[in-house]
Amino acid sequence: MSAPMVIAVIGATGALGGGIAARLAKAGYEVVLGSRDAARAEAAAEALRAETGGAVSGASNLAAAERAEIVFVSVPFASQAATLAEIAPAAQGKIVVDATVPLVPPKVARVQLPPEGSAAAIAEAALGAGVRLVTGFHNVSAAKLRGEGAVGCDVLVFGDDVAARDVVIDLVGAMGLRGVHGGPLANSAAAEAMTSVLIAINRRYKVADGAGLRITGLGDAD
Amino acid sequence: MSAPMVIAVIGATGALGGGIAARLAKAGYEVVLGSRDAARAEAAAEALRAETGGAVSGASNLAAAERAEIVFVSVPFASQAATLAEIAPAAQGKIVVDATVPLVPPKVARVQLPPEGSAAAIAEAALGAGVRLVTGFHNVSAAKLRGEGAVGCDVLVFGDDVAARDVVIDLVGAMGLRGVHGGPLANSAAAEAMTSVLIAINRRYKVADGAGLRITGLGDAD
Repeated sequence: MSAPMVIAVIGATGALGGGIAARLAKAGYEVVLGSRDAARAEAAAEALRAETGGAVSGASNLAAAERAEIVFVSVPFASQAATLAEIAPAAQGKIVVDATVPLVPPKVARVQLPPEGSAAAIAEAALGAGVRLVTGFHNVSAAKLRGEGAVGCDVLVFGDDVAARDVVIDLVGAMGLRGVHGGPLANSAAAEAMTSVLIAINRRYKVADGAGLRITGLGDAD
Repeated sequence: MSAPMVIAVIGATGALGGGIAARLAKAGYEVVLGSRDAARAEAAAEALRAETGGAVSGASNLAAAERAEIVFVSVPFASQAATLAEIAPAAQGKIVVDATVPLVPPKVARVQLPPEGSAAAIAEAALGAGVRLVTGFHNVSAAKLRGEGAVGCDVLVFGDDVAARDVVIDLVGAMGLRGVHGGPLANSAAAEAMTSVLIAINRRYKVADGAGLRITGLGDAD
């Protein structure tokens, strides 16, 4: 048996990052939680170890990215560019899965895509061409992801590196969700924008644990 | 009994417009098909009358908008601004439902939102503040819409005039689909962009009759 793949989750002390980390740990991957504050990351890792019995440790963002083969990033939009620039040296040649949604408070239920077109475009610029950038997880409710069951939401996966997308879609499946190829990195704008639509829907229809998005017509789970 | 509401469908000789018109006619509305070429509109109306037994007529775009209480618009992105400017004088005070998707051939599977942010923003500028603008139907497969059954796709409806959105969502229901409030006009960008994602999915997964989008968590039809 080979050792489990090591996956970093940058921003794992946030709600979505914590959910991603928990699902990865339960799926048997070795998970390194990254935070600006290594002590906070280690405290979160201790809690997640106790909960899942998995191999979970904590580190600074840079150290987490250095140790991992694949790096998930889930940070607020305002922190995205700086966080990615920080980990870029450690991420060269690796797959980075960026889940950043370009929400602009206070009007988070209103689509406000950045001048660059998408958070994905900002990530590409911050990481450079040597990183295998994929985006996804924009539309998944953090609360549902943190739970055990089905999340009622497909994970649209975007990227110009189709082989990297395939790897991430397999990971999404191991986490108990359905990943769907959404096309090139430029298409990430659609899922990023859809997050504000889902927030608007949550408010309008009083959906406590988060509306989701399902792709129909793929032949199963419609 | 009051007379049925008169609804115009501008661009009804196209695939999506034809599907919208057919569903409206079957739902019992009086439908006026609009085309740049009034003779083509009348020929299409004759075919749709024969098919549905409904009250369907054809006219020029402007005449169709003049006669209608609510105006649907489904035209190629390249024709959108000119078509809307043409009907604007006849649409003042009325609800216009714009289904335009900003696809830029040949790369229609790639999100390429316009500098204005969305086709909705272009429509708002072309129609002026006196029109009650709503957008929707961006993600529905024309082939499925043209058929009889369920389309496996929710209709996200956008607009700054919430009462107008409510009217359109009721219409969508009468057409046999589920309409969902997607928030303000700015949020239309999300559904417009998602069309290219669905085209990419259709190609990747070989979905012959069109992938769709379902909002989950609303308590039914998940």
